[in-house]
Formats: sequence, structure tokens, C-alpha cells
Amino acid sequence: MEKITKILLSEKEMPRQWYNIVADMPNKPLPPLNPVTGKPAGPEDLAAIFPMELIKQEVTTERYIDIPEEVIDLYRTFRPSPLFRAYNLEKALGTKSKIYYKYEGGNYSGSHKANTAIPQAYYNKMEGVRRLTTETGAGQWGSAMSFACNHFGLELLVFMVKVSYHQKPGRKLMMNAYNAKVVPSPSTMTAAGRKVLATDPDSPGSLGIAISEAIEIAVQDPYTKYSLGSVLNHVSLHQTIIGQEALIQMEKANDYPDVVIGCFGGGSNFSGISFPFLRENIVNGKKTRFVAVEPASCPKLTKGKFTYDFGDQSGLTPLLPMYTLGHNFIPDKIHAGGLRYHGAGVLVSQLRQDGFVEAKSKFQRECFEGAILFARTEGILPAPESSYAIAGALDEARRADLEGVSKTILFNLSGHGHFDITAYEKYFEGNLPDHEATAEEIELSLANSAIPTF
Amino acid sequence: MEKITKILLSEKEMPRQWYNIVADMPNKPLPPLNPVTGKPAGPEDLAAIFPMELIKQEVTTERYIDIPEEVIDLYRTFRPSPLFRAYNLEKALGTKSKIYYKYEGGNYSGSHKANTAIPQAYYNKMEGVRRLTTETGAGQWGSAMSFACNHFGLELLVFMVKVSYHQKPGRKLMMNAYNAKVVPSPSTMTAAGRKVLATDPDSPGSLGIAISEAIEIAVQDPYTKYSLGSVLNHVSLHQTIIGQEALIQMEKANDYPDVVIGCFGGGSNFSGISFPFLRENIVNGKKTRFVAVEPASCPKLTKGKFTYDFGDQSGLTPLLPMYTLGHNFIPDKIHAGGLRYHGAGVLVSQLRQDGFVEAKSKFQRECFEGAILFARTEGILPAPESSYAIAGALDEARRADLEGVSKTILFNLSGHGHFDITAYEKYFEGNLPDHEATAEEIELSLANSAIPTF
Repeated sequence: MEKITKILLSEKEMPRQWYNIVADMPNKPLPPLNPVTGKPAGPEDLAAIFPMELIKQEVTTERYIDIPEEVIDLYRTFRPSPLFRAYNLEKALGTKSKIYYKYEGGNYSGSHKANTAIPQAYYNKMEGVRRLTTETGAGQWGSAMSFACNHFGLELLVFMVKVSYHQKPGRKLMMNAYNAKVVPSPSTMTAAGRKVLATDPDSPGSLGIAISEAIEIAVQDPYTKYSLGSVLNHVSLHQTIIGQEALIQMEKANDYPDVVIGCFGGGSNFSGISFPFLRENIVNGKKTRFVAVEPASCPKLTKGKFTYDFGDQSGLTPLLPMYTLGHNFIPDKIHAGGLRYHGAGVLVSQLRQDGFVEAKSKFQRECFEGAILFARTEGILPAPESSYAIAGALDEARRADLEGVSKTILFNLSGHGHFDITAYEKYFEGNLPDHEATAEEIELSLANSAIPTF
Repeated sequence: MEKITKILLSEKEMPRQWYNIVADMPNKPLPPLNPVTGKPAGPEDLAAIFPMELIKQEVTTERYIDIPEEVIDLYRTFRPSPLFRAYNLEKALGTKSKIYYKYEGGNYSGSHKANTAIPQAYYNKMEGVRRLTTETGAGQWGSAMSFACNHFGLELLVFMVKVSYHQKPGRKLMMNAYNAKVVPSPSTMTAAGRKVLATDPDSPGSLGIAISEAIEIAVQDPYTKYSLGSVLNHVSLHQTIIGQEALIQMEKANDYPDVVIGCFGGGSNFSGISFPFLRENIVNGKKTRFVAVEPASCPKLTKGKFTYDFGDQSGLTPLLPMYTLGHNFIPDKIHAGGLRYHGAGVLVSQLRQDGFVEAKSKFQRECFEGAILFARTEGILPAPESSYAIAGALDEARRADLEGVSKTILFNLSGHGHFDITAYEKYFEGNLPDHEATAEEIELSLANSAIPTF
């Protein structure tokens, strides 16, 4: 058989439905709670910030959700995404294992975030919304949303975590190019931002704070709603197109993964690549392992607590049942800005709780080392976030070689690092600190992140 | 028939040969001349800086040249490249015409330069070369060459035009990530660099100086050779894979271009997309028009002179028969660094002389305006160089609409603009000057760029 490096699918082969893992979960996720009443949050608790169609998707137990034709139409510009066999990386490692990666950085936004930005903008437009607000850390999500909003004729206001705003001016300008307004967070535009700045004028910001700011603006105007790029069920739902494509592509490669790996921030890219394969475990008896790789400086899955917590720093969201470091946790300024989030998606949290998902944490230097090896062999310069998935894949290949076995490894290369050059510069200069969140820090953060009692 | 946005080819459909248009040219190009003797330059004039296989490709009249298997293997990581139908751009324009673009920015280097970097590194490696030197302006070529050299186990020393070195640190770091050494030019490493610095310590550098430095280092060591990213016949040859793929893809789209458009610096990306279609004109009676779009500040094809001139500023290359503004021409500092070259490739020059190729010049503000429209509709943020091709395509569509006809327009989107954010920033700030090289300036430059007489 001829060697094939890229397994491509035609637009005709693109999945026409998203996959909702809730339908197949043995234990359904606990409901979000209204933080005032302590009762399960209903659609009315979310209607101020989300359109009804996304709220429905948030709670549905339907197994498959149709992708609207207008969304398919824009997906066509970059989906199906390619699945690569990493021949050159395998050769450099001298591994017996086979390494595949699904590349989600080939679209306009440079990451998987486009997969959910497009439907989110679409559903809001359909329900008469005129403006969206959102937060962004590393900037992938903001870029993804900027183009999607402009395409559907919506205004967009992005609160960009201040440390990223200064580290990554390219991302800010990209959002401007796509017609969005970008504000560094914490800002003086909101009460939440002003409160943070009053205590710490030099606050680097966090995703939690930026979310609070974006929600605060959204609830003030009936024609403005809010959009979130990870964590929630509907976001993970939209990302499942990644794994569904990969299922078809692995079949075309006459192969099947022993292990599926993703980096982990809020959980959406990990969910996207994993859930369709996880269904094969649950329903068809496959034995694939699923490994989420998170930063040692923000280790919610490995050191956090499974409990109800707010999704944002100020406590504006419903209470979500998740692995969390406490909503007041401020992660160290590592360069994988997209992974600096205190909590984990509700679905992944439940699946981790039930033993379906493994997790491990990594220091950033080791991840950058893996990213450079990857760039020099496979060509693509990875996003710092994606480098955690690479490091996870390298671990699997090396362990298999030590054990004298060959594994089929699949990871999600969630994005490129073209706007992360300062991070690479620091790595080459030897100025990339490793930081580990200690048990004491996490305990303190959890204690300082009290939630209402009922 | 179902709407298809991306016309993809499988790796099996990738062309296995490059196309050499010399075989089909009614008038063959004039020979390069040895600048000392005035006689046609032979292989011995080039052997100090190029490997024999590339010298052979420079002068061959064979119609098709086999692509080595090792080159095919690395092409697999990004070729065939997609051909897009620009539905969203067409809609925004309200045009009756069909606009297609071949996207060459999806590979590791972010531009078409990878197509020739890989074979150049390969042939040098096969002939025992251990190190290559090259120059880079905007940085696409340097990035492309860095990865290719690292892959084949060659060292690479890149002289990067100093003004770009400081304006585009991202490109420099990308080259470092791919294991290349990057030096700002003029440097103190060479006599040529020291000479410039002695007269002007603050010299911003130029491609001409950087070429001189790279060649000076290469000729000092038998295991070091030099590599050029455009202008020469073998470079255009390697780029024809673009047009050959596009021929197959247009056929799959049941369509054929009335006009093919490329931006124009040294000519390699324009040649790459055009030559295979031009063959159809010459051999099969097709009537496609070919339009090269160059900056008004560096208008060799529209205002230059067809004559023998040096390929570099210091006069180290053979004399090449080409459209030129004079080898001492210093173009205005427009942001399309890759188009700031005084000459035009030998093959395109002859074809332009013989009426096969049209040319037009554009101001950069209009091109950036087109680039933003393109980004907001098609998603991809274009390289400033590629924006000239976009502007050319928009002209064709608008003219066809005025004439009440529908045309099929194909252009080459040669690269992305992820490392050109400062240029976009200046555009948004309104700080992007338009500059036109006047007839007087060009006359003066030609007078100051004397070549030896024999």
C-alpha cells in the first residue's frame, strides 16, 4: 500500500451531526445549580446570557444534534481537517509505535475554537441578538469568534486576559482585522474589573475575571448576549466533529487508537477528540485510554476537587459540578494561556469521576521541548497549549518502547503557535520558568473560593 | 451537484514531475553571461555556489523533470495544497464571476517557498554539501529553508535584512525553532557587510547586500553552498507543482480559468501557478490571460527595462536577461518585503517580452483593503505579498461585472500574514504610505547600475 501521510476527507464525508455523549454516559452529569436558590438551574437562569437553542443543547440528552446548513457552509472552508501520520516524528523518536495527530490549526483562527464559534454566532443571530461579549486568554477563542460574528453580522466585544494582551499583540490585531473590539481585562468598563484593579492595579488578569466582565456587560442589554469558548456542554458538543472525523480517518488508515490524548484547559478540545472514541468504549467494548494533559501550574484534574463551583471569578454563572481549584485561583503566568482556567468541563469532570478519563500534569519546559522536536520533524510550530498534548504523546510512545510494545497513539494538535513567538523566545533563552501549584496553594484557593450554602 | 468549497487532491494525485516551460517557449530565454568574459555562463560559473543537479535544472530543455522520492515524501506533509472556491468573497462582491484561489500558506513555512526549499536542500545534501547560506527579506524563504535543511541534516546560515530582522522577530524565531542560525545583514561576518557598515553603521540592509554576504561565505568553503529562493529557472521549475495541481483541481471543478493571477517579486509563485496553464495556451490553444501584479514602488515589469543585469546589488551573480529597475534600485519600504526586488525571473521576462504575460502595478493601501475584505469573507489573513494577487483578482471581477460578463478567475494565495501583524496595524492606524517609483527615479537607477561592457 502506498504511504499516506495525510488522511483527508471530502466535504461530502463531513459529519452532519454533533455527538452528545450525555446520551451514552452511565452516570449523567449533575445539574447546574442556581447560586441563589440552590435549586437546579433552569433555562430561565441562562436566558439572560445565552440564546435558547444553545441552552437546549446544554441540557439535551439526544444523542445526535443536526448541524445547521449555514454552519456546515462555513465549516466547508476548513473542515474536514486532516489527520496526519507523524512519520518524521516517529523516525526521530525511533519508536515502534504509530503516532497520529488531528490538526485543528489549519483554519482561519488557527485552532479548534472555530468549530464552536461558528454555531454560537449562528444561533445568536437567528434569535435576534445584535452583539456578543466574550473573554479570551491566549486569543484563539477571540479570533475564532471575531470572524464568526463578522460573518453573521454580529458585533463582538472581547475581554482579553491582560497578560496575554501584552504577550500576544498579534492575536489582538487579528481580532481587529476580523472587525472585533478588544479590551484588556481586568478593565475599568465593568464593576468586576474595577474591583480587581482596586486591590491589584497590576493584576495580570485571568479567564475567570474576563468571563465576569463579559457577562456583566451582556446582562445589561437585551440585544447583547455572552459566548463561552470552553467548559460548557454545548461547546464540547460542537467540538465532537473533531473526533467523529478522526473515527472515519482512523478507519481509512486501517488503524484504531490505543490511546487518545488532548491538552486540557476547560476541556473542549479534549472532549472533541475523545468523546466519539469514548462512545466506542462504552457502546462497542473498545479499550482505548483517554489522557488529558494539563499544566502543573493549573492542575484541576490531578489536584483539584470535584465539587460545585462557579465558572467565573466573580460568581455570576450558575454553580457547575466540576473539578476545580477554586474560582479565585490565579494560575502562574505560563505561556499556554488557554490552559489557565480554574475548572474543568462538566462532562469531562463526571467522566473523570467515573474512571473513563485519565489525567496528568506537565511542566511547560518539557512541553516546549516536545514542541520543538515536533516542529523540526513534522514542520508545524505548535501552540503552547497543544504542546501539552505532544508531551503526552511522547510519554506514551517512550513508555511503549520501554515495554517493548507498539501502540497506536492519537492526539489532537489543537492549534499553531504563530502568535506565540515570545514564548518560544523565552524557551530558547532559558527563561521559561517551571511552576507547580502546591497542595497548600490549592487548599487555600478552595478555602477562599467559598460558594453559597443552602 | 453538491456545493464544494475546497477541491482537494489525494497524495496519490500529486504530480510526480515538475514542468519546465522552456521546452514549450517559442523563443528560448537568452543565456546568462559571465560578467568578466561576456560569454554565456557555463556550469563552471555556477559550480562554486550551486550543486550540479540544480545547475542542470537551470539550463535543461527537458519538458518534465522527475521529483525525487525523498522530496515527494516531505511534500506529502502539505501537498497537494487545496484549491478554494471563494464563495463568501464572491457574495460580498456581488459578482457574477467565479473566483478560485490556490492556497500555498498551509504548509510549515506559511508560503509557497517550501516547494523549492525542500528540493534545493535535498540536492545539496546528495552532493555532499554540509552547510547552506541564504538571504531572507520578509522571512518566508528563510523559514522554508530552515526546516528543509534541518530535515536533510544540513546546517543553515541565514542573512536576514536588518530592517526585517527587527520588524519581524517572529520569523527569526521560527528559523531558530527550525535550527537555523540567523544573522542580521549587513553583518561583520563578511567583507561585503563590513564595507557597508563602515560607510553606514545604521544601514537597514537590503536583499542585495544579504545575497552578497551569503555568497561570500559560501565560496570560502567547498562544503558550503548558496541557495536562492526566487528568480532562477530551477526555482520556478519547482514551483510549477502549484499550477499542475491547480490544472487537475480546475478540471475536478468542471471549470477552467479565463485569467490566472499572481503577485510578483522575483517571479517564482507567479511562474508556479501560471506556467502549466500557459502551456495549455501554447500547446492546446487555450486563451487564458496571465496577470502579474507588482507594487507601484517596485515596478520592474511595468516600468523596468528588458536587459542584462546582475541578480544582486554587488554584482556577484552572472548577468541575467530580465526586466530590471537596475541592480542598485532601492525600493521604498513597503510591507510586502518579498516583492522588493529590482529584477524579474528570466523565464517570465522572456514570456512578458513575447506577449504571453500581462503586468500591472498596485499601491499597497488598495492591496491591504483587499486583504481585509478577503480575511473577513474567506477567513485567511493574507501575507502582504499575496494581497497584490487579491487586488488583481478583485479588479478582474469588478471589470467583468461592469462589462456584464462572468469570468472564471484563479489566483495564487501565496502565503498567510501571521507574521505581518505590524503591517496590518499600520494599515488600521492609517499609517501605510503609498509610494510610486517615478520614471525619473528608475532612469537614474538604471544609469547608476552599469554592467560591464564587452
